[in-house]
Amino acid sequence: MADDSAQSLKPGALLAAMRQKNPLVQNITNFVAMNIAANVMLAAGASPAMVHSPEEAAEFAGIAAALTVNIGTLSPDFFDGMKQAAEAASEAGKPWILDPVAHFATAYRRAAVSALLEHRPTVIRGNASEIITLAGEHASGQGVDSGDSVASAQAAARALAIRHGCVVAVTGERDFVTDGHRAVHVLGGSALMPKVTALGCSLTCVIGGFAATMPDKPFEATVAALALFASAGELAGRDAHAPGSFAVRFLDLLAEVTPDAVDAVARVIPA
Amino acid sequence: MADDSAQSLKPGALLAAMRQKNPLVQNITNFVAMNIAANVMLAAGASPAMVHSPEEAAEFAGIAAALTVNIGTLSPDFFDGMKQAAEAASEAGKPWILDPVAHFATAYRRAAVSALLEHRPTVIRGNASEIITLAGEHASGQGVDSGDSVASAQAAARALAIRHGCVVAVTGERDFVTDGHRAVHVLGGSALMPKVTALGCSLTCVIGGFAATMPDKPFEATVAALALFASAGELAGRDAHAPGSFAVRFLDLLAEVTPDAVDAVARVIPA
Amino acid sequence: MADDSAQSLKPGALLAAMRQKNPLVQNITNFVAMNIAANVMLAAGASPAMVHSPEEAAEFAGIAAALTVNIGTLSPDFFDGMKQAAEAASEAGKPWILDPVAHFATAYRRAAVSALLEHRPTVIRGNASEIITLAGEHASGQGVDSGDSVASAQAAARALAIRHGCVVAVTGERDFVTDGHRAVHVLGGSALMPKVTALGCSLTCVIGGFAATMPDKPFEATVAALALFASAGELAGRDAHAPGSFAVRFLDLLAEVTPDAVDAVARVIPA
Repeated sequence: MADDSAQSLKPGALLAAMRQKNPLVQNITNFVAMNIAANVMLAAGASPAMVHSPEEAAEFAGIAAALTVNIGTLSPDFFDGMKQAAEAASEAGKPWILDPVAHFATAYRRAAVSALLEHRPTVIRGNASEIITLAGEHASGQGVDSGDSVASAQAAARALAIRHGCVVAVTGERDFVTDGHRAVHVLGGSALMPKVTALGCSLTCVIGGFAATMPDKPFEATVAALALFASAGELAGRDAHAPGSFAVRFLDLLAEVTPDAVDAVARVIPA
Repeated sequence: MADDSAQSLKPGALLAAMRQKNPLVQNITNFVAMNIAANVMLAAGASPAMVHSPEEAAEFAGIAAALTVNIGTLSPDFFDGMKQAAEAASEAGKPWILDPVAHFATAYRRAAVSALLEHRPTVIRGNASEIITLAGEHASGQGVDSGDSVASAQAAARALAIRHGCVVAVTGERDFVTDGHRAVHVLGGSALMPKVTALGCSLTCVIGGFAATMPDKPFEATVAALALFASAGELAGRDAHAPGSFAVRFLDLLAEVTPDAVDAVARVIPA
Repeated sequence: MADDSAQSLKPGALLAAMRQKNPLVQNITNFVAMNIAANVMLAAGASPAMVHSPEEAAEFAGIAAALTVNIGTLSPDFFDGMKQAAEAASEAGKPWILDPVAHFATAYRRAAVSALLEHRPTVIRGNASEIITLAGEHASGQGVDSGDSVASAQAAARALAIRHGCVVAVTGERDFVTDGHRAVHVLGGSALMPKVTALGCSLTCVIGGFAATMPDKPFEATVAALALFASAGELAGRDAHAPGSFAVRFLDLLAEVTPDAVDAVARVIPA
């Protein structure tokens, strides 16, 4: 099929498709990320809705084309909304993305992520420490920052992808994406990206935007989201050299970057 | 009276009056909007306070000069605070502004807005889909975005204003404001404004600032707030061409724009 | 000891030490501040974690090197988390910083701050109105803004510092820091700083970063945090003249300012 050709699944083409569709994505994310994640999604070409309350989260999951769940500032009310929305999305066959922020830090987070995994996320995105510990291994993260390299998380990512039948993305200096069988690196970005809070959380939401655009291609959707960030980040890093101005330029570039520029700047290579 | 002359009720004069008074406005708004709305109010010349908890929302409504309520990320605790604050503001004769974000999307939101309307808001601000559905008609919005044109919402806005005895503002490419009898369009702005999240929510808070400055003139106050946004947005759009830099320039211009520039750039025309 | 020499306790040297250590700081702050405070800490060289839920706040206080507590958008759940985290930090001998935002405005806030003070904060930071009322005197603040000058709060700050055995910082045009015995002014900054929401809240978090770096020197840590803000603010004010661009430039300068520039630009003088 034409849609399955290598050309039409390149990140640039998928970005064009997302901008065309402007999919509605429900994001249950943390208080730090809510504003920047919404701005990132609008710039990238998706329509974000932050709807978390147990009173409506499942109903809204029936309206949105995809769901993202991020446990960054977890609390019982948000957790109830997350579970209900994840269950509703899963039952409706809609993609949902899990961002297990610092799940290894406390017992509460570990239990929450275990419960969320039962609803079979389509994609898991985390930093190296988060992915390593999610696979049951020992990591060296501090707080919400990763103490491990992406390279050291590759085996854990593959194991996790196979165990849960999902795509796993490990992001950092050199991103790694696998569905347990295929695997690629996505290169690009800027050293300033971890200096802007919640860009990783925002990326999780953007994966939701791409997954909503091509729900049966979560591997390609995830790679496209990472390539968009890698290219916009790399281009922004050429113009801005400190975190405040970098964040502004990065938002601009998420909107300005062309599909061709995404394919030219981000390097997607087999792992 | 001199204060009622057409000249002194022009948006520029009202902006000068608000900056002079620097009114304290209580905002119960959503998590996405809280930071940008506070920055927008500070830049415009009002003093924002985000106080939502049922433990203190009504008490604080007795201190503030106006109240704004936005259901963007509604939850039961916030809803309780909203109802108590709206009741306190209403009983004290203070203006309060309702922003019924995506109230048509879920049963929970519809019920919440119905309950809030019982406390007689002074102004309702929404996009076209929100106003159309609030008036009981069928709309085509998706998530928090409007699927309808402002023009298609004018009749609904007039009906709503008469039914609730309030001012209704429909914002979009071509804003429309009515109190059921008078009606104007406010023109200006930039196509980038909907690409910055929560600018509409922030505008609701700014309406609160103007209404606090002239509590017996909610129609003129609302028009002035929209004219401020229209002029700052249009001027920002001349300097910035992507959402990140536009948001920065827009904030600058809210502080920098002179009363004369507001009157010169924003077009307020009879509807 | 070398570490106690005047030279090594100058703000610039302490900034270098904080950047070297990159301490993990738990912040229980308000919804307006969460994003900007995290960005400020990352730019300054600390590692922020926003963890507030009673289910994990105390456990996380055992992991973090310092804690900051800010009552800006107080609610019962956050308050429970604050008390548990403050107790855990206090018992573990870790520094914790209290920001009693507008505590004089409502009965709920007054009671909350009284309860938090029982856990013996290491540092209290507030504006003049907050410090004056915390010492039991009458102030003239409105909402979250101070209606009093820093000079008028000095005696209250000294009394408060002695009563609670802590450092007290009064910030405004001319900052004042005391531990009840020593006292200094920190000069610098920009008139635009109060036009950017939550910069004071963000400063509280940065005090946490310095206190985590030198937990037995809370007076010097507090002065260093204020000096960093004073220098970055003053330098940003030379480049930017409106609140949107000022906020961006300020974030850049928090990352770019050298230890020598902090010592050269901020004036720390005996009070």
